[in-house]
Amino acid sequence: MQDFAPVALDKAAILLNHGPVTLVTSAHGDARNVMAASWAMPLDFMPPKVAVVIDARTYTRRLIESSGEFALNVPARALAAATLAVGSVSGAQEDKFATQRLATFAASRIAVPLLEGCIAWLECRVLPEPHNQQRYDLFLAEVVAAWADPAVFSAGRWQFGDDDALRSMHYVAGGWFFATGEAFSVNDDEP
Amino acid sequence: MQDFAPVALDKAAILLNHGPVTLVTSAHGDARNVMAASWAMPLDFMPPKVAVVIDARTYTRRLIESSGEFALNVPARALAAATLAVGSVSGAQEDKFATQRLATFAASRIAVPLLEGCIAWLECRVLPEPHNQQRYDLFLAEVVAAWADPAVFSAGRWQFGDDDALRSMHYVAGGWFFATGEAFSVNDDEP
Repeated sequence: MQDFAPVALDKAAILLNHGPVTLVTSAHGDARNVMAASWAMPLDFMPPKVAVVIDARTYTRRLIESSGEFALNVPARALAAATLAVGSVSGAQEDKFATQRLATFAASRIAVPLLEGCIAWLECRVLPEPHNQQRYDLFLAEVVAAWADPAVFSAGRWQFGDDDALRSMHYVAGGWFFATGEAFSVNDDEP
Repeated sequence: MQDFAPVALDKAAILLNHGPVTLVTSAHGDARNVMAASWAMPLDFMPPKVAVVIDARTYTRRLIESSGEFALNVPARALAAATLAVGSVSGAQEDKFATQRLATFAASRIAVPLLEGCIAWLECRVLPEPHNQQRYDLFLAEVVAAWADPAVFSAGRWQFGDDDALRSMHYVAGGWFFATGEAFSVNDDEP
């Protein structure tokens, strides 16, 4: 059973600030989908907003344009193979939750499944900007709820420990990722 | 002397795909500035485009709105303290290139300085989208030239070696960063 704890909305941007790869979940009626997105970033602190690129040819795009909702799930490294796989196959062809054995749990403010095996979740409602969507495949959204796995995020900050499987990751290309590496502070180096 | 080599435009997105912190350089007339931006991401592959959030109160914003140009510089870890510092002081108060001892070299297609000590550079021309700029502080731009340090990027991919000081970094908050960690591929794990 996935462990998750609420993240205050004014801390939601921290979940994405370091640029991890995300999994976008979406749903409309009985249909649901999951795809990978590296091109996602915070857009504002409070109320928290995000920007994400969703290609016009994807099944996810159809669901998001119908429902006006999606979730950004930050996968742990243990989900790396599934992250690559759901970025390579269309949900119009298969139920990727089933083929990738991705378990889900309910979101609180939107009717979109959240993925087990992730370490952070941002529930998002689209801010309708048709020009951005049509010309740039760019979706802006408000974050209406946020969650994180207390094993790696607590007191408003990431606290990765020794378990590399619970770290976030950064997608490069061609099936290659970088792990999120060691944390360091430069505050003591300031003159 | 900074070593840099051209990156083909269809590979430019790879320079930002893993979500590193960036330094935004800008200039107009005799004025120039540098600030930190974590909220930057690729927007398209070809022609390559980027999206970046530039707060309305910044001196950088004034310069970019006047010139229509900026560069995204990807700092190596050796520049971590300078990255935090230029994100904490306004260029309206001081010449941050001087106070942070940041050497520069000329860009090829834009009149904006590029920073030595970085490992990748994207020369950008703003795609005028006044609504995004005014409402969301969001700038979209086309990448018109790209460069990388051949010590860590060659054959169209990042090739970080043993020198941690040459790795990119990911900003968290409060002076904390993550180093870009180990590279791994999941292609062999695919069923």
